[in-house]
Amino acid sequence: MNSLWEKFGGYMIRDSSENKSLYYLTDFEVHDDVTYLKTEDKDLLLVSPLEASRAGKEASVDKVINTAKYTEGDIRDDREKEIDLIKKFLKDQNIEKLAVPEDFPLGLGDELRKEIELSPVNDFVIEERKIKSEEELVKLNESQKMTEKAMKHSKEILEASDIHEGKLNYEGEVLTSERLRKKIKRVLEDAGCNVPEESIVASGREGSDSHSIGKGPIKAGEPIIIDIFPRKDEYFGDMTRTFVKGEASEEVEKMHSAVEEALKQALNVIKAGVTTDEVHGKVCEVLENRGFKTLRQDKDTEEGFIHSTGHGVGLELHEPPRIAENDEELKEGMVLTIEPGLYFKDVGGIRIEDMIVVTEDGYENFNSMSYEL
Amino acid sequence: MNSLWEKFGGYMIRDSSENKSLYYLTDFEVHDDVTYLKTEDKDLLLVSPLEASRAGKEASVDKVINTAKYTEGDIRDDREKEIDLIKKFLKDQNIEKLAVPEDFPLGLGDELRKEIELSPVNDFVIEERKIKSEEELVKLNESQKMTEKAMKHSKEILEASDIHEGKLNYEGEVLTSERLRKKIKRVLEDAGCNVPEESIVASGREGSDSHSIGKGPIKAGEPIIIDIFPRKDEYFGDMTRTFVKGEASEEVEKMHSAVEEALKQALNVIKAGVTTDEVHGKVCEVLENRGFKTLRQDKDTEEGFIHSTGHGVGLELHEPPRIAENDEELKEGMVLTIEPGLYFKDVGGIRIEDMIVVTEDGYENFNSMSYEL
Repeated sequence: MNSLWEKFGGYMIRDSSENKSLYYLTDFEVHDDVTYLKTEDKDLLLVSPLEASRAGKEASVDKVINTAKYTEGDIRDDREKEIDLIKKFLKDQNIEKLAVPEDFPLGLGDELRKEIELSPVNDFVIEERKIKSEEELVKLNESQKMTEKAMKHSKEILEASDIHEGKLNYEGEVLTSERLRKKIKRVLEDAGCNVPEESIVASGREGSDSHSIGKGPIKAGEPIIIDIFPRKDEYFGDMTRTFVKGEASEEVEKMHSAVEEALKQALNVIKAGVTTDEVHGKVCEVLENRGFKTLRQDKDTEEGFIHSTGHGVGLELHEPPRIAENDEELKEGMVLTIEPGLYFKDVGGIRIEDMIVVTEDGYENFNSMSYEL
Repeated sequence: MNSLWEKFGGYMIRDSSENKSLYYLTDFEVHDDVTYLKTEDKDLLLVSPLEASRAGKEASVDKVINTAKYTEGDIRDDREKEIDLIKKFLKDQNIEKLAVPEDFPLGLGDELRKEIELSPVNDFVIEERKIKSEEELVKLNESQKMTEKAMKHSKEILEASDIHEGKLNYEGEVLTSERLRKKIKRVLEDAGCNVPEESIVASGREGSDSHSIGKGPIKAGEPIIIDIFPRKDEYFGDMTRTFVKGEASEEVEKMHSAVEEALKQALNVIKAGVTTDEVHGKVCEVLENRGFKTLRQDKDTEEGFIHSTGHGVGLELHEPPRIAENDEELKEGMVLTIEPGLYFKDVGGIRIEDMIVVTEDGYENFNSMSYEL
C-alpha cells in the first residue's frame, strides 16, 4: 500500500457498486458508474448531479465531487464526454501516474494513456477485504445464523414429510425441490435476508452435479443436498447439509461419514499461519484414505471430491482466498467456508459446509447445527 | 459486424454470465470467468473441466473447448496460468489481431498485447440486444404481465386500507412501505419471478427522492409511487403507477394530470424512425407547457422533471437506448420504458411508467392498467 504511492500519484476505480471493492471503500450503493480516486492522503468520489447529494450524506470518503464541475449534462450517452470528464478530473488532481485494478476497462485505459501513465496493479482492496473487521464479523455471524435457521426449517419439513411411492409428501402434496426451495426463501426473507441466488435442493442423481440447483420430487432413501447462501445487510451466509429421508444405503453412509470426518479434520488444522494447501490437503487425505478419488490424485476424475475445500465469504459469496491446491497463508479474521463433498453419478452427492472465522490459535464456527444425515 | 472481420481475426469476451452480452451470445449461465471467441465463421467457448459437460449441453455455441487442452488443474488462483491459457488458445485459433469490448480487463489486455494486436471496439452485441426477437418479446410481455399483476394487487391493498390518524391501516395494522413491498414480492415470487431488487413504495416526501425505495408508514392524501421491476425467465418487467389514498391536493392532481398527458403524448410520437430526443422532447414540452421545470430548461434544477424519459429493457433492467437528450433512432423491436415524472420536495413524487415495443408505425403497450391516481 505504502509502496503504491512511491510509484503512483493515485489509484482509481471506475465502476458501479456492483464492484464490491468500490463499495467496501465508499459504503456507497450506486447503479451508474462513478469514479473513485485514492491518493496518499485522501480519497475522492466523483458522481453525477443526480447522485451528489445522496453521496454527500452516505459515502464514507473524504470528499464528494459533482461531475458538473467538469462537464455539463448527462455523460451516460456520450463516451467522449465521459473520457473528457475523467481526464479533466485527473488533471485537476495533478495525477500523472495512475494505478488501476487489473479489471479496469481497457477502452477507457487506452484513452487515458494518451495523456497519463496508467498501470494495472494487484488489487490491494481485495487483500484488505480478506480480513474482516469486528463489524463485518457481526454481520457475517448474523447472516449465517439466519442461514442455519432456514436449514433447520428445511430439516423439520423433511422430518414432517411422509414417504409415498418412493417420493416425499409434505402436508398432502409431493415435496419437490422447487417447493422446499420456496419455503427456504420465505424463511430467509422473513428474517430480513435477500436471496440473490436460489438455494440448492438436489436429491439423488441431481445432487451428483455440483452445479445443479435441483428439480422435481424429492426421493426417499437418496441423499438430499441443501446449500443455502443468502445475504443480510450486504454480507453473505453459506451453509450446506445433506439429509436422507428413509433408509440410507451403506454406500451413502460411508460417503457421509468420510465427508464429515474430512470436515472435522480440516477444521482441526485451521489456525492463523496455516496455508490453504494444508487445509485442502487434509480433506483430500481423509477422503483418499477412505478410498475415494480426489482431483489432486486424478485431475480427470468426474466423480469423488471434485471441487475445492472452500472460499472466503463477505460482500461477495465467493471471495479470496480459495482453499485449494494453492499456497496462501490463513490470517486471523479471514471468514471461510469449509465444504468437502463427494459425488457419484449413480448415488448422488454428499456435501457438508460450515462457515468459520480464523483465529490466532484455531477458528470459531458460525454454525452449531449437527452434521447428521 | 462484417467490417469487423476485415480488421480482426476474432472478437473475444472474458467474463462470467453476469456479463449479459456474453449470456446473450451463449445462453450459458456461469459464475466463473469463461472465454468466448467469435470468428468470422464460428464461435467457441473455452471453459474449465468443471463446466465442460454442462456447457456442452447448454451453451449455444459452435464448439465448447475444455481448458484441460491447454493447461493442467485449476487456473482460478493462478494469474500467470490464466494468461498463458488464453495465449495458447488464441495461438491455436491463429488469432493475431483481436477485437475486445471496451470493458475488457486492462491487466489481461496488457499481457496479451505482448503477443498479439488487441483493440477495444464498440460493443456490437449490445447493438443486437436492442432489437428483441419474437422469443424475447414473449418473455418480456410475460414479465410485464406479472409486474402488472403485482401492481393491481398493490392497488387492491391500498383500496382495502383504512385511514387512521393520517396513515394507512391494512388488516388492522399500519401499512408501511416495507410491508407493502413484501406483499408485492410474494405475489411476484408466486408468479415465478425473481426480485433482484426491491420494489419502490415511496409515499410523500420519500417519493420526491427518485432514488429512495421508501420506508415507514404510508400516508393518506399524499402521492404513493410504486415502481416494480422483477425478472422472469431472465427478462425484466418494469412499471410504475402513483396512487393517492384519501383526498389528493389540487397540486398533486395537476402534477398527475401533466405526467399522464406527457406519457400519452410521448407514446403518440413513438414509431420506428423517430429519435430518442424527439420522444424525450415531447415529454419535456408537455411538462414545460404546464408550468413545470425540466432538466433541459434548467440543468441545475433539483425539482420538476429531473430524469430521462426511459430506457431499454431486456436481460438487464436498464439497457440501451436511453431516452433522453441523445439522438438515437428508434427501431422496430426495441422494448422501452416511458416514464415521465415530477418531483417536489414538499409535495412528493408522481411517476407513471409503461413498457412498450416499438413497431413500424407505432408501438404496442405491454401494459393495460389505467393511469388513475
